Amino acid sequence: MDTGTTAFMLCCIIGLTMMIPGLALFYGGMVSVKSSTNMMMMTFGAVAVVGVLWILFGFSMTFGTSYGGFVGSFTEFLGMKNLLEPMTTVNGLPVSLFSLFQALFAAITVALISGAAADRMKFAAWMVFATVWAVLVYFPVAHWVFAVDGTVTKDSVGGWIANKLHAIDFAGGTAVHINAGAAALAVAIVLGKGANWGRLRKPHNVPLTLLGAGLLWAGWYAFNGGSALAAGNSAAIVMVTTFVATCAATLAWLAVEKLKDGHVTGVGAAAGAITGLVAITPACGAVTPVGAIVLGLIAGAICPLAVGLKEKFGYDDSLDVVGVHLVGGVIGTLLIGLLASDTMPNKVNGLFYGGGLDQLWRQGVAALAVMVYSFVIAYVIALAIKKTMGIRISPEDEELGIDTKVHRDAAYELELV
Amino acid sequence: MDTGTTAFMLCCIIGLTMMIPGLALFYGGMVSVKSSTNMMMMTFGAVAVVGVLWILFGFSMTFGTSYGGFVGSFTEFLGMKNLLEPMTTVNGLPVSLFSLFQALFAAITVALISGAAADRMKFAAWMVFATVWAVLVYFPVAHWVFAVDGTVTKDSVGGWIANKLHAIDFAGGTAVHINAGAAALAVAIVLGKGANWGRLRKPHNVPLTLLGAGLLWAGWYAFNGGSALAAGNSAAIVMVTTFVATCAATLAWLAVEKLKDGHVTGVGAAAGAITGLVAITPACGAVTPVGAIVLGLIAGAICPLAVGLKEKFGYDDSLDVVGVHLVGGVIGTLLIGLLASDTMPNKVNGLFYGGGLDQLWRQGVAALAVMVYSFVIAYVIALAIKKTMGIRISPEDEELGIDTKVHRDAAYELELV
Amino acid sequence: MDTGTTAFMLCCIIGLTMMIPGLALFYGGMVSVKSSTNMMMMTFGAVAVVGVLWILFGFSMTFGTSYGGFVGSFTEFLGMKNLLEPMTTVNGLPVSLFSLFQALFAAITVALISGAAADRMKFAAWMVFATVWAVLVYFPVAHWVFAVDGTVTKDSVGGWIANKLHAIDFAGGTAVHINAGAAALAVAIVLGKGANWGRLRKPHNVPLTLLGAGLLWAGWYAFNGGSALAAGNSAAIVMVTTFVATCAATLAWLAVEKLKDGHVTGVGAAAGAITGLVAITPACGAVTPVGAIVLGLIAGAICPLAVGLKEKFGYDDSLDVVGVHLVGGVIGTLLIGLLASDTMPNKVNGLFYGGGLDQLWRQGVAALAVMVYSFVIAYVIALAIKKTMGIRISPEDEELGIDTKVHRDAAYELELV
Repeated sequence: MDTGTTAFMLCCIIGLTMMIPGLALFYGGMVSVKSSTNMMMMTFGAVAVVGVLWILFGFSMTFGTSYGGFVGSFTEFLGMKNLLEPMTTVNGLPVSLFSLFQALFAAITVALISGAAADRMKFAAWMVFATVWAVLVYFPVAHWVFAVDGTVTKDSVGGWIANKLHAIDFAGGTAVHINAGAAALAVAIVLGKGANWGRLRKPHNVPLTLLGAGLLWAGWYAFNGGSALAAGNSAAIVMVTTFVATCAATLAWLAVEKLKDGHVTGVGAAAGAITGLVAITPACGAVTPVGAIVLGLIAGAICPLAVGLKEKFGYDDSLDVVGVHLVGGVIGTLLIGLLASDTMPNKVNGLFYGGGLDQLWRQGVAALAVMVYSFVIAYVIALAIKKTMGIRISPEDEELGIDTKVHRDAAYELELV
Repeated sequence: MDTGTTAFMLCCIIGLTMMIPGLALFYGGMVSVKSSTNMMMMTFGAVAVVGVLWILFGFSMTFGTSYGGFVGSFTEFLGMKNLLEPMTTVNGLPVSLFSLFQALFAAITVALISGAAADRMKFAAWMVFATVWAVLVYFPVAHWVFAVDGTVTKDSVGGWIANKLHAIDFAGGTAVHINAGAAALAVAIVLGKGANWGRLRKPHNVPLTLLGAGLLWAGWYAFNGGSALAAGNSAAIVMVTTFVATCAATLAWLAVEKLKDGHVTGVGAAAGAITGLVAITPACGAVTPVGAIVLGLIAGAICPLAVGLKEKFGYDDSLDVVGVHLVGGVIGTLLIGLLASDTMPNKVNGLFYGGGLDQLWRQGVAALAVMVYSFVIAYVIALAIKKTMGIRISPEDEELGIDTKVHRDAAYELELV
Repeated sequence: MDTGTTAFMLCCIIGLTMMIPGLALFYGGMVSVKSSTNMMMMTFGAVAVVGVLWILFGFSMTFGTSYGGFVGSFTEFLGMKNLLEPMTTVNGLPVSLFSLFQALFAAITVALISGAAADRMKFAAWMVFATVWAVLVYFPVAHWVFAVDGTVTKDSVGGWIANKLHAIDFAGGTAVHINAGAAALAVAIVLGKGANWGRLRKPHNVPLTLLGAGLLWAGWYAFNGGSALAAGNSAAIVMVTTFVATCAATLAWLAVEKLKDGHVTGVGAAAGAITGLVAITPACGAVTPVGAIVLGLIAGAICPLAVGLKEKFGYDDSLDVVGVHLVGGVIGTLLIGLLASDTMPNKVNGLFYGGGLDQLWRQGVAALAVMVYSFVIAYVIALAIKKTMGIRISPEDEELGIDTKVHRDAAYELELV
């Protein structure tokens, strides 16, 4: 066991956990004041249920011995049994720590989807969706992408994207962001448009959204850097590219706002930073720092245009999970095929560095596979919920506000009574 | 010196410090808008004064050579003298770092008490209470529980709970949570009921409370994991149980709310998470991950009922320090006696794992001793303050609001003047 | 490579990044509700642009081979080239990680200046100022102070303050706080008084300011402790002095408020903590824990008086960057000359410890040099912006509010429409 690497990963747990309030606020600040408690509770609720599932059997389904590259054994590590001994290690880490690191990936990915469901989804329906989607989509897809052969035990066999396709996804461009983004699209479609569709939607609390973005940024270093699974040069380089892509995307988003609308906004600064973080996530070990600036500028310029797709196609992805996470995730995943440099930890050259088209098609296949699988299953789950328990609150409740009606809990009581 | 372990503990200081704004917001969001500045200041003020006391003589009283297991030498490490040399280490850590880690435990424990004093306690009285309670209660009790023989120097003699009774308290179920909760009860009784007792109290800012809970959750890994004092397997396992107990307790609290009231609330999600964190704190190194789920479910189901005790018995524990920290701390401390498994770092079996009643009675004695000592001394301190400088602001000031009257500092100015 | 030290510094990046939302909120909560989005965006905008500049050439200008001690080579590490190999290390750290650590120093220092520009500076003008000041002032001054000979390569030659003058500045009392504070004074003078000068200014959101202070406090351990560049005893001791000076300064500020105004405030608690952090920054490796208490008490007592200087001299330093960062930075820098003890990592005795006046004059020269250079160049930059693109929004826009007029983005929409 390496105490330095163990120390790093222990602290990454602190960083990843900061992303829970970070995401809750990033989303919670953007919705109307009538929905902010509900919005934040969807994050906390998703984390709570996925956390329990993960320990019970999620880790086993994700990192247990593979059934044909598609999903791991349900029972191999049931309840984390046999993973508590000091001698069980992944890469010099206690395997229980590796499991916890991945638990937070699972929890945060599910919570990301909630941004599409603002204002109008039954809380119980959300909790059921989170449970079923985690089991049917997240655990298998994370297995495809993150379960490299030999991760947990020497002869464990992992997922098809990591081991057969050899697509590069350092920290979850596919398994986290495309995955959540595609599911968000399905949920938005099944839910239908919110009552305030077509009206001007204003964020109710911009400082909370900026704060949320800041906490996510801080925690994201644990996400990306921790995916190196070692306190060493790779983690360091990955944090450098993560940092600078975020900076570049923020600048690009603000520039696009200025050109398009004539002014820059606080939500734009927050969304720009998150876009950079999303896009660099798969690529943080593949592109150089200067490549990361280019990648950040591209994602930061395209995503503020992509968020307009929902008006064009008429799906109510309330907080732009599609525009930021799906589109940003696809951009980052594909740009690896162009911008990867073999001086970086992934040691692959993309098209512009003389590597030809080999990596690019692998990236495209991985992105497409995750997107289609997640969208289809999420759509079926959401539809099944709709047909059984119902997925949406009543129009009256939505108009009066989900916080007051469903949670009996207005977010604010600021009057001096 | 182990650089990995040192790195871990250095970073734990960052995590623990996040608990300062975390607690201030968790409490500050729950009170009325007329009291939120005061509420947050009680946390910052307590941390400030206890921090200075700790460096001057608190560390010495807690970890200095014991007088009969009850309290450490006042002068042995006065002003941290002789603890700055690189060669002085605890468990491979610089002893100055161990001292700082424990300083934040002291500061946060005192701050926890303030939740019972919302809306109505003189700020100067609070600062005096914090000072005297730290010296007369926290430093000795922490000595009982945390000062294992040989901690700081090879022949240093520690506290009676750790070394004679051999009760298990990994990270402060007794010394932190039962201790603070019992003191909170005493303070609530001496203060008397708030002016708004019996009226519906609504949190003024639910997002801040959820944010506070999230920051506390993140920082709590440093609290519990750091108590392993090493970057290794124990810290990793402890973080796993901490994580999953929190998830389980959140689910249980929300389920109880749903059954009892027909809806779930944002404050419930926050309180559920904190309850899980409190209850797992003593037990995080004793129960398996599945045991932690059970423990979290139990604490998360009982505590939302326990917060009703204040109406029954008529003490105004404004923010439920008793219901969450005292009751949750007792639950976690006692469940060790039932659920402990010797596959975990504490290497003890509880009743359900074939260990008989041996551990259970030790846990009960420790819980009771801390509860009674803290309650009695806190009551005497609060009463002495009441009889001398006065402990409560005037009814007029309380009605108009402690922020405006005492601090001349309304929390918000949101009007566009 | 030392994995423990690398782990520590990787986690410091997480801590430093928390300072971004921390600073944005600390400032953003203090301004009027009409300006809070703008205030927060100045932090995010400055970080974004300085981050990109740093990777492109800022690191090279700061740590590249020196031109006469004044500035490093512009091209030596252009775009971080040649710094990605595992074999390139500083002090057992990957050099890319050292670069990222310093990137956040640069970004945060520039953002600090924005506190002087509340309510009235064109956002584009701010972004231009941030860019030019970073290049002409921060990169050279950080070279003077932080580029110790041999830092990046064995024969690299560094800056004059670190290597010739031998002033002590552990983590940026001169390069960060005096530097930013002097620039803030220049910006305030060039901008002129805000429209609300002379009226009572009330913070619009005290909880956000306290939260910001708390996040800054947590992150500051990474700032100061990380400057030890090793997971060892020095970092530990530095965190102890950082902690206790902050506590002491908070108490002192509140005491001064009580004596002067008759009550204590939430903003006072926040400002006191930040003052302690600022003042201990240069001295955290030079003064003992008890010395840190003295230093914190002095800074916390003087700075609340120093913030009154702006009324006396008529410059509108809106959020007291001068009173806290310039004055606090000077106090900390000079007190090293008096309070330094050779039992501490810097191994120097100040006047009161028998070291005579030798260190004191070095500290004075360093403080003065940075202050004068930063003020003069910042003044010229701000004046050049004023004369060309204009630096200030129109009086009408300022009266209506910079958020609404410039960003079309009111910070809050709290009405239930």
